Amino acid sequence: MHAKPPEKKWKAGVLGATGVVGQRLVQMLGNHPWFDLTEVAASERSSGRTYAEAVRWHLDAPIPDAARGLVVKGLDLSLDCDFVFSALDSSVAGTAEEDFARAGYPVVSNSRNHRMDPDVPLLIPEVNAAHLDAIPLQQKNRGYDTGFIVTNPNCSTAGLVLVLKPLVDAFGLEKIFVVTLQAISGAGYPGVASLDIQGNVVPFISGEEEKMEAEPQKLLGKWDGSRFVDAGIGLSAHCNRVPVIDGHLECVSIGLKKIASLDEVREALRNFEVDADLASLPTALRNPIVVLDEENRPQPRRDVNAGNGMAAVVGRVRECPLLDVKLTLLSHNLVRGAAGAALLNAELLAVRGFLKHRRAPSESRLAEPVSR
Amino acid sequence: MHAKPPEKKWKAGVLGATGVVGQRLVQMLGNHPWFDLTEVAASERSSGRTYAEAVRWHLDAPIPDAARGLVVKGLDLSLDCDFVFSALDSSVAGTAEEDFARAGYPVVSNSRNHRMDPDVPLLIPEVNAAHLDAIPLQQKNRGYDTGFIVTNPNCSTAGLVLVLKPLVDAFGLEKIFVVTLQAISGAGYPGVASLDIQGNVVPFISGEEEKMEAEPQKLLGKWDGSRFVDAGIGLSAHCNRVPVIDGHLECVSIGLKKIASLDEVREALRNFEVDADLASLPTALRNPIVVLDEENRPQPRRDVNAGNGMAAVVGRVRECPLLDVKLTLLSHNLVRGAAGAALLNAELLAVRGFLKHRRAPSESRLAEPVSR
Amino acid sequence: MHAKPPEKKWKAGVLGATGVVGQRLVQMLGNHPWFDLTEVAASERSSGRTYAEAVRWHLDAPIPDAARGLVVKGLDLSLDCDFVFSALDSSVAGTAEEDFARAGYPVVSNSRNHRMDPDVPLLIPEVNAAHLDAIPLQQKNRGYDTGFIVTNPNCSTAGLVLVLKPLVDAFGLEKIFVVTLQAISGAGYPGVASLDIQGNVVPFISGEEEKMEAEPQKLLGKWDGSRFVDAGIGLSAHCNRVPVIDGHLECVSIGLKKIASLDEVREALRNFEVDADLASLPTALRNPIVVLDEENRPQPRRDVNAGNGMAAVVGRVRECPLLDVKLTLLSHNLVRGAAGAALLNAELLAVRGFLKHRRAPSESRLAEPVSR
Amino acid sequence: MHAKPPEKKWKAGVLGATGVVGQRLVQMLGNHPWFDLTEVAASERSSGRTYAEAVRWHLDAPIPDAARGLVVKGLDLSLDCDFVFSALDSSVAGTAEEDFARAGYPVVSNSRNHRMDPDVPLLIPEVNAAHLDAIPLQQKNRGYDTGFIVTNPNCSTAGLVLVLKPLVDAFGLEKIFVVTLQAISGAGYPGVASLDIQGNVVPFISGEEEKMEAEPQKLLGKWDGSRFVDAGIGLSAHCNRVPVIDGHLECVSIGLKKIASLDEVREALRNFEVDADLASLPTALRNPIVVLDEENRPQPRRDVNAGNGMAAVVGRVRECPLLDVKLTLLSHNLVRGAAGAALLNAELLAVRGFLKHRRAPSESRLAEPVSR
Repeated sequence: MHAKPPEKKWKAGVLGATGVVGQRLVQMLGNHPWFDLTEVAASERSSGRTYAEAVRWHLDAPIPDAARGLVVKGLDLSLDCDFVFSALDSSVAGTAEEDFARAGYPVVSNSRNHRMDPDVPLLIPEVNAAHLDAIPLQQKNRGYDTGFIVTNPNCSTAGLVLVLKPLVDAFGLEKIFVVTLQAISGAGYPGVASLDIQGNVVPFISGEEEKMEAEPQKLLGKWDGSRFVDAGIGLSAHCNRVPVIDGHLECVSIGLKKIASLDEVREALRNFEVDADLASLPTALRNPIVVLDEENRPQPRRDVNAGNGMAAVVGRVRECPLLDVKLTLLSHNLVRGAAGAALLNAELLAVRGFLKHRRAPSESRLAEPVSR
Repeated sequence: MHAKPPEKKWKAGVLGATGVVGQRLVQMLGNHPWFDLTEVAASERSSGRTYAEAVRWHLDAPIPDAARGLVVKGLDLSLDCDFVFSALDSSVAGTAEEDFARAGYPVVSNSRNHRMDPDVPLLIPEVNAAHLDAIPLQQKNRGYDTGFIVTNPNCSTAGLVLVLKPLVDAFGLEKIFVVTLQAISGAGYPGVASLDIQGNVVPFISGEEEKMEAEPQKLLGKWDGSRFVDAGIGLSAHCNRVPVIDGHLECVSIGLKKIASLDEVREALRNFEVDADLASLPTALRNPIVVLDEENRPQPRRDVNAGNGMAAVVGRVRECPLLDVKLTLLSHNLVRGAAGAALLNAELLAVRGFLKHRRAPSESRLAEPVSR
Repeated sequence: MHAKPPEKKWKAGVLGATGVVGQRLVQMLGNHPWFDLTEVAASERSSGRTYAEAVRWHLDAPIPDAARGLVVKGLDLSLDCDFVFSALDSSVAGTAEEDFARAGYPVVSNSRNHRMDPDVPLLIPEVNAAHLDAIPLQQKNRGYDTGFIVTNPNCSTAGLVLVLKPLVDAFGLEKIFVVTLQAISGAGYPGVASLDIQGNVVPFISGEEEKMEAEPQKLLGKWDGSRFVDAGIGLSAHCNRVPVIDGHLECVSIGLKKIASLDEVREALRNFEVDADLASLPTALRNPIVVLDEENRPQPRRDVNAGNGMAAVVGRVRECPLLDVKLTLLSHNLVRGAAGAALLNAELLAVRGFLKHRRAPSESRLAEPVSR
Repeated sequence: MHAKPPEKKWKAGVLGATGVVGQRLVQMLGNHPWFDLTEVAASERSSGRTYAEAVRWHLDAPIPDAARGLVVKGLDLSLDCDFVFSALDSSVAGTAEEDFARAGYPVVSNSRNHRMDPDVPLLIPEVNAAHLDAIPLQQKNRGYDTGFIVTNPNCSTAGLVLVLKPLVDAFGLEKIFVVTLQAISGAGYPGVASLDIQGNVVPFISGEEEKMEAEPQKLLGKWDGSRFVDAGIGLSAHCNRVPVIDGHLECVSIGLKKIASLDEVREALRNFEVDADLASLPTALRNPIVVLDEENRPQPRRDVNAGNGMAAVVGRVRECPLLDVKLTLLSHNLVRGAAGAALLNAELLAVRGFLKHRRAPSESRLAEPVSR
């Protein structure tokens, strides 16, 4: 069902490997059929410590053996890998990602810094794979050679847009009203203080509403050969933090362009299927939207791991007195909304030929002793 | 500041006194300047036990001394009180409240059964005190003598409508989009199982969205002398249960009829003040809306007790890309949304002359030996 | 590593299949190499509904396909299975289990009713497999033919005794002081009300301290051929409920008979290994005790699934100023402490020859038309 | 009932005023009959901001008006106050408290640094008021003039020792086994990360067990005129963090020197009464121990505020199979265990004549221009 393993695996590095998203990436790369994790790096110096020594590991699954002994490097432009994932904090990601791209590394980023750049794809493979067409222009604009930057959306945008995709295709979208109930793991570690969130809700997440109102426009819009054209949907978001470990729940009201019955909407969601090409990516699901019939689902604690965390789970499809349809959706903020999103993007880049096998820095240095 | 105590206090009974809302009523009546708690009753037989013996008390404050020794009666139409509060479960409230009204007791109900009856006021004193004018017609229609039924809204409607009141007055309302994050105490006891809500959100509360979409129409509408005329506002609600003890948080987007700046909206909310008559009620606040400036407030655990639980707390007043204004509001579901709401309604009824001093059943029996 | 699948699988029934423990059993039997789940039964009538219809499923993993369509039966003595698991509520388990044993079914029980019976093994395979020797006497005493009853300990006892086993073997035990912090899933469903446990601790679990002070005496004692001889350990337990989903944590101080260094204690725990015979059971671990070195582990949310929930996880082995050793241990109350415990017991019974292949009730009836 | 207000109030400063304990002190000083809060100071510079600007306020009650406008100073030895409370972090408290004492300020400290110093009283007024006799020797030893240091115990020790006091007096104590379930507010702010404690228990609090095993020896011991003599009780503690906001629960087993019935133990606890002198302190309770009869109490969320947070609440007094008595106790970690403890200590110092009215620094400077 999945594509055959490549003859030669690509070497992957993870920037920001000790953070909450970086850890998920490291874990998901632990046994990946296409990628070998060869480098872990962090913005703060770890003075030669191994990954197992430097990381405060948060996941249930143990640290992959392949990662335990890797020395944590700084943001060093001579990492021995064919491309890098970036899970860097936004305070350093902007410049660092540009530096890596300029140094020839494809950068598959989860950070927010370059998402809205006019020549950087904001990518969900099931939604807008065609946006990869912007890469050559990006390289030309910025004078990058083999490097480039591709980003995935914000954790709360990812699930929303995935669910909107079949609806925009079938009926067109006019307006979206969304209120999020977001998990604490979305704030990283140490992140939210327990005194702030225990038995409480915090009705504010810095910058989140702005991202949710902007990113879907780009994701659901088109690349016209020279620029991204916004989808032109009316969008209003309220974002809240709730005392849930993993899984962002979203209450959504949707205004469609074409009249549709609730059954048609349910069918469009349930039947959403990616093409065979995409479905063959190791991290992809053939049907990335799961529709539940129980009136009290989805629930974060019970449904967050649907599809290994890569599904968007939808429930309570019903009429909206103001717009057309109300529904509730859930997606795993650290998988579909972060690490899994980046991994899937890298897999798409691989099959589309955007990842090359670089020579190891040492080989390069031997071969091109006068360079740099 | 508050009205002078009456020369003679009214005797109050509480139906459903052992439930979560009934307990709050009992507690709030513990030291009330106008009302003496003389009867506690419950739908299930307590076989002569005192209130202290029969109740599983949930509140921090102790059981009021005046209540401890009261014998818990059944739903007995010869209770020794001038009026009754009803915190009965909706499975029995419908008939029981009618029976008490027919037997001559004013019934101040928190139950949902009669809220939408065409001749029963659904009352928030600060919002629609004029709806009391429906009482005489109710009595005539139903053949009630001194009895009648007055109700307060659903716990999540109460805070919303209180906040909408100054906006409808100043700018008119077209559309309301609301998503609730509701506390577990709203489901009574034992209510929500911990296995269902610990570290989780349940995106469904039976019947809640229907109530929130219907009740504000009546509350913000008019009594035209013969019937209630709906406010005609477009309303869409999503209701969620979150792991919070007390306090319903609501994310609201509002479409106004008249253009208004955010500052004008904030001022309308902040300056909302009830008239001196209302402000003199023991449970009333002069300014029942509190507007916070911090970007991450209101929060249930931190703000739920504002104004002794009778305030609606508003924060994050900001532009809505779809409608006009977004805001977040919080109110105490057991006080403003239930027990305090009923108590305030009773106080309004008292000053408006709707509560009479009844003779005690024993006195009546002596005086009118042949009646009934 | 595990024993070879039997030529013919045993047919298993689950009594109390819709409860929290019953669900775990059904799930663990979903793909079991030795046992086929053929019957699900419950004490309350389900009027012919299938398991999928009748159960309120709580687990992340879906209902096994093999179980979905089984009709939920009553406690019917003609179930088509070779033995039964009992996850019945203690209010009915006492008589029901005796009835099934008398009707010829081996009963592998998680209920407390018969645990301390003088002829019923209270069994943890890694601890006291020799107690199975009591079965023939039980059958003789009670007039059972092929049936009998075997029980597993209380959920908080299971982890404790497993950890004590290597210590009693190596050093002898004099005194145990234990305080538990027990998960809400231990109370079943709906179990603990969220209003009782959210942000709270309840320092009482009915009957739990008595069980913890009694059961280890039997478990760590001997079967002398005619009766169980207590281990004679001094034991004191305090039991608390904490807002954790799964996993009972226990703070233990231990007085040893023989002087031992902390390192010797750690080694005894870490090296605890079951014999090859036991290790070959499908649900068994070769090393059922995991010792962690981090000073702040074990933690319920992070370590509860160690060894698929069948391990006891130990940390913080340190000196006790009053007794000899302090440590903290964790075990999964629904797996090691209930469903997994019963399953492991059944597997041991299978390899020891205590489970027979019964003819189906219909076959019996055809073959022996006059019986019963 | 409380002592008469002094003719002239003492001026109080709070060091570490912006932390969690400092905030409680500021709040409790907001309306104190004997003390005026005149200075707030913090170890990190707040560059001239007022308290209202500098603090991230965590309490439900608002910031006292008297505190809002105070400028937050550094640890400046010319604060205008008669004595200081120290709620400083232990990383700076050691030296800073000595500096203030040397500069003439009585220091009433909640920090751990000097608690076990051989000439510093570790004080609980109801337990060991006589330890104040050590102050003159402290001043002599250290060359302090009017200044000195008095400390209160660790938050988990405070409640324990208060409960032990009547038992040691009536029966003598041999051994104490204690396991704590401690609230998150005990770790300050931001303190415990929500990802660490949500739905979890952390069985480790750095340094806590050592404090709990050492401090009671001093508290329950004697000052013999030249040194503190330990109480010589055998003590073993296990400390855990649980997801509770406020209130440390402790499971305790107690070995007494004299045989006592459970009723005698209950009576000793219930009848514990401080003398009239102590009871007259504004923050004191006449009966600081509350004994509950319900089998499932005390509970942190429901009982933490007993006696305005100054009571120790005891329940479940029962036999211990290993020692003599088991019980569960609860006390408010931020009130009885920190801010209230320090406040009560200051009140005792005031009535015992240890607090003087200092001239304001400006006055001093005018009067003694050549000093220092």
